[in-house]
Amino acid sequence: MIIHLKANVTEGQRKRLTRKLALLGAAIYYSPGTGDRLLAAIGEPSRMAQADPGKLPGVERVVEIATPYKLANREFRPENATLRVGPLSFGGKKIPVIAGPCSVENRTDLLALARIVRKAGATLLRGGAFKPRTSPYSFQGLGEEGLAILAEARDETGLLIVTEVMDTRDVDLVCRYADVLQVGARNIQNFNLLKEVGKAGKPVLLKRGMMTKVTEYLMSAEYILSNGNYDVILCERGIRGFDPATRNTLDLTAIPLIHHLSHLPIIADPSHGTGHWRWVSPMARAAVAAGADGLMLEVHEQPDEAFSDGDQSLLPERFRSLMKELKPIASTIGRQI
Amino acid sequence: MIIHLKANVTEGQRKRLTRKLALLGAAIYYSPGTGDRLLAAIGEPSRMAQADPGKLPGVERVVEIATPYKLANREFRPENATLRVGPLSFGGKKIPVIAGPCSVENRTDLLALARIVRKAGATLLRGGAFKPRTSPYSFQGLGEEGLAILAEARDETGLLIVTEVMDTRDVDLVCRYADVLQVGARNIQNFNLLKEVGKAGKPVLLKRGMMTKVTEYLMSAEYILSNGNYDVILCERGIRGFDPATRNTLDLTAIPLIHHLSHLPIIADPSHGTGHWRWVSPMARAAVAAGADGLMLEVHEQPDEAFSDGDQSLLPERFRSLMKELKPIASTIGRQI
Amino acid sequence: MIIHLKANVTEGQRKRLTRKLALLGAAIYYSPGTGDRLLAAIGEPSRMAQADPGKLPGVERVVEIATPYKLANREFRPENATLRVGPLSFGGKKIPVIAGPCSVENRTDLLALARIVRKAGATLLRGGAFKPRTSPYSFQGLGEEGLAILAEARDETGLLIVTEVMDTRDVDLVCRYADVLQVGARNIQNFNLLKEVGKAGKPVLLKRGMMTKVTEYLMSAEYILSNGNYDVILCERGIRGFDPATRNTLDLTAIPLIHHLSHLPIIADPSHGTGHWRWVSPMARAAVAAGADGLMLEVHEQPDEAFSDGDQSLLPERFRSLMKELKPIASTIGRQI
Amino acid sequence: MIIHLKANVTEGQRKRLTRKLALLGAAIYYSPGTGDRLLAAIGEPSRMAQADPGKLPGVERVVEIATPYKLANREFRPENATLRVGPLSFGGKKIPVIAGPCSVENRTDLLALARIVRKAGATLLRGGAFKPRTSPYSFQGLGEEGLAILAEARDETGLLIVTEVMDTRDVDLVCRYADVLQVGARNIQNFNLLKEVGKAGKPVLLKRGMMTKVTEYLMSAEYILSNGNYDVILCERGIRGFDPATRNTLDLTAIPLIHHLSHLPIIADPSHGTGHWRWVSPMARAAVAAGADGLMLEVHEQPDEAFSDGDQSLLPERFRSLMKELKPIASTIGRQI
Repeated sequence: MIIHLKANVTEGQRKRLTRKLALLGAAIYYSPGTGDRLLAAIGEPSRMAQADPGKLPGVERVVEIATPYKLANREFRPENATLRVGPLSFGGKKIPVIAGPCSVENRTDLLALARIVRKAGATLLRGGAFKPRTSPYSFQGLGEEGLAILAEARDETGLLIVTEVMDTRDVDLVCRYADVLQVGARNIQNFNLLKEVGKAGKPVLLKRGMMTKVTEYLMSAEYILSNGNYDVILCERGIRGFDPATRNTLDLTAIPLIHHLSHLPIIADPSHGTGHWRWVSPMARAAVAAGADGLMLEVHEQPDEAFSDGDQSLLPERFRSLMKELKPIASTIGRQI
Repeated sequence: MIIHLKANVTEGQRKRLTRKLALLGAAIYYSPGTGDRLLAAIGEPSRMAQADPGKLPGVERVVEIATPYKLANREFRPENATLRVGPLSFGGKKIPVIAGPCSVENRTDLLALARIVRKAGATLLRGGAFKPRTSPYSFQGLGEEGLAILAEARDETGLLIVTEVMDTRDVDLVCRYADVLQVGARNIQNFNLLKEVGKAGKPVLLKRGMMTKVTEYLMSAEYILSNGNYDVILCERGIRGFDPATRNTLDLTAIPLIHHLSHLPIIADPSHGTGHWRWVSPMARAAVAAGADGLMLEVHEQPDEAFSDGDQSLLPERFRSLMKELKPIASTIGRQI
Repeated sequence: MIIHLKANVTEGQRKRLTRKLALLGAAIYYSPGTGDRLLAAIGEPSRMAQADPGKLPGVERVVEIATPYKLANREFRPENATLRVGPLSFGGKKIPVIAGPCSVENRTDLLALARIVRKAGATLLRGGAFKPRTSPYSFQGLGEEGLAILAEARDETGLLIVTEVMDTRDVDLVCRYADVLQVGARNIQNFNLLKEVGKAGKPVLLKRGMMTKVTEYLMSAEYILSNGNYDVILCERGIRGFDPATRNTLDLTAIPLIHHLSHLPIIADPSHGTGHWRWVSPMARAAVAAGADGLMLEVHEQPDEAFSDGDQSLLPERFRSLMKELKPIASTIGRQI
Repeated sequence: MIIHLKANVTEGQRKRLTRKLALLGAAIYYSPGTGDRLLAAIGEPSRMAQADPGKLPGVERVVEIATPYKLANREFRPENATLRVGPLSFGGKKIPVIAGPCSVENRTDLLALARIVRKAGATLLRGGAFKPRTSPYSFQGLGEEGLAILAEARDETGLLIVTEVMDTRDVDLVCRYADVLQVGARNIQNFNLLKEVGKAGKPVLLKRGMMTKVTEYLMSAEYILSNGNYDVILCERGIRGFDPATRNTLDLTAIPLIHHLSHLPIIADPSHGTGHWRWVSPMARAAVAAGADGLMLEVHEQPDEAFSDGDQSLLPERFRSLMKELKPIASTIGRQI
């Protein structure tokens, strides 16, 4: 249940409330930016019903949340979360663009590409050091060496680093290098990993799985939120459909839908969402027009030789022209890019 | 196979070619707007291979088409089809908007709504007189009476009429009233209906089925084209997915994909594509940004009382503001609305 | 609503009831085999609520049907429908097997195959004379000539004929030759066709569409039932999924599910359901074990040369061994084949 | 590539071959049960092409494997894997049945249920100690305490234990208690977990994911095989579809399909595959008829009070009658249960 406190709530009233909730076994979460006047109490529904906190002094009103996700629900945070990552923010007026290669392949190429994407207007750099690959015989990423290269690129360009963590055992390591931890589509229901990144103290970019319903998606976010980390960025990256004509089906309707249900920012990844560079630019434009809070784009100087996902990588030149196309679209809906 | 003729091809050379192709059982189709210098010859592949028309005088070059659709393939018509419907065109710079109720419910409401949508900038009026309904007990449409009301609305407002035909037996009747024949999602593989509208001499709006792969979609268009009707408008209206959070999954990537594969114009229907008015405006914006050649939108003055699809209908006021939002987006990609 | 009448209901009581229902605009349907003591009254819910027939003399009890399908609901016909087709029945102890080629290709081959499948134990012959083909350039069936060949095969072998009708205009023609009218997967929501076969006075084999939810499937059956034809056989033939490894996903759970929801018999078509002869035998066995009321199987003497669906056709020899495998499985669940 | 050695291959020839392959960077795997005369060499395709081992003495023939999975391919192991787990085997004539509750809830109930299912004919006990739950607020399993209870049940009943491991950090712990490690559907592409269980020295039951193509499924198995663990049991447990009428779509065709592509045994889980006890018995029968190498079934004495998945759990009595129904079906296809 969501509890709104009165503006003049006293410390004593607040304590009485939280003591009562604690006795019923509820966990208490304060909505950020509300001066601790909006809180969620989550416990066994049957026991919570006994609490009846609406009658306690200092309580303005109580709202029951029908959805299984509580902290991800907009009721818990009526304003959009504007999620700060260093000097940037997700969910605000300015739309960050995350660009880079699928995998970190080597130092030289990554640094070169980082300069290119920064110059074109990207503010975050993507690149996988730990790569989830369908085949055990495919390139699995450079591991910590890749992380160090990413960190070097940050030092040189000022781009913030988004990179994937795949294993509970690697969370600490990745935290030492990354600005944003990415949890990939295949780990959307790797619940132990969600718990660990929930405790990691870094913003998390949580990609939707290929087969994840929106409710399940918000439940996976809830794992992170309920472990104390409210800095979750969602990312629509295409769902699996019946038509092999595209790698995935980019479900852009999820953007306004999630904006309605939740306060969490949601960005789009048209590279994975479509699987081919040819559809990336129109779908990036469409994502911004639909209200996306950011974009994640694969860029590569020699897509034909990429270790992974070459088909869906934009050449630097296309990326630059796309950035120019996006600006006026963003401004028509009151955003900037 | 696609045959390009030389600029100086003689009548005799042309006759010799077509005679040879006819002897092999091929059907011949001329690409519009090419001065009859680009033609498709469609026949049994094994027999066609014998033709070897590349060696005949007057023939510039021959292109084999790998896709099963031939006339819908861009090779048959390298320029985008700009499809004229009265004073309007689909596939040109200007993006037509088709608006109106799901069903024609009565004369008064339809006329009132027609005036509203025209004033807001729509140029075509939609409204079902024959309605495909999941339940035999639901309203099945007003039939010819509905068609007559639509025609009256056209006479009064100048809006052109788009309305569905569901039965081979009704094609003549609907042709007497409609400017554009709509074939609905459920009839995407009603091949006899496709043949009949292929002979009807009216533009056809062919909606994608819920489960139609893009290749199958173009094959259904091919049924119409190969029966002599080149005026086919495609329409992405959402495919069926696994998440009940939305009625359908609006697959906007189909727009640039079909633009790449085919010369046919493709519009979007975010009303059916999302199933809820709340997602219609952002997805209409996204569709235009993705390059849609038109929009089809359900509008109703009292959605709660609509005979069908009330949830997904825009109120007139929202429709008006959406039309205003769309203009600057269209202009950022060199289109007008 | 479903109305159960008392055993001693009088003619006068019955008339009073039906008059009242008729005044409220309800259509009345009697459940077969109940001595007209169980009837469904279908009308506008709001008006029906006024009827309150439970209070009328002669009425034993009234059951509201929550599902949108009423006549297909098991409440309307608590016993399984045992649907007679000539000397055969669907839904009884004996499981009929429908076998034959995808298309009728010529007289000689069809007659030869008819003898083969009859000898192996089939009791109905399938074969398409009107073929729904994805491509306008593919073989579209022999039309009436094909129907005549099927009828000849029946005359010679005694096999009953199941063949598809695709167009409302052809229903009369197909009725003149067929014992069972097949409505194909692509026409599952061709509602006008459903209405026509509902009036045709012949049993209808209604195949599930590739993307048909079970509720929608029963609603399509309802179109036929509510037009007066209670002789509907359902057929699970595979739904469309995400994995190209098989042509379709044979959803055998639909068999016990539909047996629970409805009284209608349901058979399985593992040929279309899997798309490859290699998986047909194990899935035919599985279908019988799951409780299928019949099987529909494609058999061809020279699958490589079949005009359509050769991949999924069994050679006669395999068909014969499959029939032998099926017998003991049927008997383990109290059926015969 | 798969390399078949001659019956009279010498040690020297063998060494020369393996040295050459090692120099090219290939990993070498011997097919079990072939006297080390069939081996797979897996390396960079371009380098492997240089090896040309077919010309070396002692080599009988070389087979290139077109599929991305190599060790899971039937070419690597032409005979079915008969996988021993204690006194039992998967893939042999006898079909093991794994039964038990979804979660281990407490000692008393688990021991009672273990006795019941063993008496009815089950030979392995299932029960989750680590539970992947969509909600962070749902019961997450008893952890090691649950494992200890399972081990106690084994000691008492002789049933072997199958239980899930969800986290790379828990593999050692679970190995100390379990006879078979289960990797759940949500972890089908948790590649680090697959690597760890590949090194764990215990048989692995690898459940198909909701959205896993058969090729991807075999690739996930390949992660385990290529880490040295050949004891992998596959399990069809339903894929996600578009119809909410069932929890999942049990894709039984995967059974004969995987038997064709791979040597690995595959069992079926109709409890998760259907989501409701009502469809479990017919689908268990169907799975056996389709050739399943085992069954996994949820059984609970009080399904209404189960901590998880009560809907899909069989009552003990139903489980007993199902076991009786399965025996004759198994025997009709030359198996035993």
